[in-house]
Amino acid sequence: MIEFEPIGIIRSPFTEPIGMPIQPAGASGVKGTVEVFEKYRSALKDLDGFSHIILLYHFHRSQGFNSHVVPFMDSQPRGLFSTRAPRRPNAIGLSVVQLNRIEEGVLFIENMDVLDGTPLLDIKPYVPDFNPQSDVRTGWLEQVKHKVSRHEADDRFK
Amino acid sequence: MIEFEPIGIIRSPFTEPIGMPIQPAGASGVKGTVEVFEKYRSALKDLDGFSHIILLYHFHRSQGFNSHVVPFMDSQPRGLFSTRAPRRPNAIGLSVVQLNRIEEGVLFIENMDVLDGTPLLDIKPYVPDFNPQSDVRTGWLEQVKHKVSRHEADDRFK
Repeated sequence: MIEFEPIGIIRSPFTEPIGMPIQPAGASGVKGTVEVFEKYRSALKDLDGFSHIILLYHFHRSQGFNSHVVPFMDSQPRGLFSTRAPRRPNAIGLSVVQLNRIEEGVLFIENMDVLDGTPLLDIKPYVPDFNPQSDVRTGWLEQVKHKVSRHEADDRFK
Repeated sequence: MIEFEPIGIIRSPFTEPIGMPIQPAGASGVKGTVEVFEKYRSALKDLDGFSHIILLYHFHRSQGFNSHVVPFMDSQPRGLFSTRAPRRPNAIGLSVVQLNRIEEGVLFIENMDVLDGTPLLDIKPYVPDFNPQSDVRTGWLEQVKHKVSRHEADDRFK
């Protein structure tokens, strides 16, 4: 067992999973905040130079997992690890969000697809150069990814 | 406290932190494997359609954290959350790696910057469309990111 402790709390307009955007791409303009706990605030130095950051957080409303899920954008069951569905063996969520500013330990975020009250686990700088630059295939998502900005979550992963 | 359990083990040529590439961008051609434990293998269905995947793992050799670190690519202390350094409040690592094939629960990976024996926490599909597409600023890394492919880790985060 590996133990982690929240380093902050994510605040968003989404108090229930139903109706949420399913990715930051579908959350354009949605604003929220990340409240970083006092003891971790000095580690935020230099982060304001980055326009986008990676949030890792705990899907605290998810319990258990299924090996196969029908994703919001698809109509047939897919292997869990080929999806971003929240009910995972280790319920860790990942979102790349826009960082507008930081004030006294509070990060002002845009394009927020995270549930209000979500425990924050880590913040990392988003660096496009650390990602593959070409020849990327995206499997079952190739056919449906244009739908991401039009989809909202329903209760299937409650 | 939030408890997570490894879902597999990452195998790589790197048995010690010193001399490792510091990002997949600096690990071009380095091959490794991800051995997913039996009970999670059926959840790998459909993953082979993706050319790249996100690995989340536990920096198991890191203990404690410092709020400020001097990154490998830089000469001055930076706030921890503006870096990918392993000694974090929650020691979760993230790498986007190339997936060559899957055979009986073993993922064959290229561009591997992870230490041998690292506990795997999660696998997610890498989808460029879920990331920001333009106007990305990368703070202190702007000046030094061209160095990433030339740098290797030393013992500073041991």
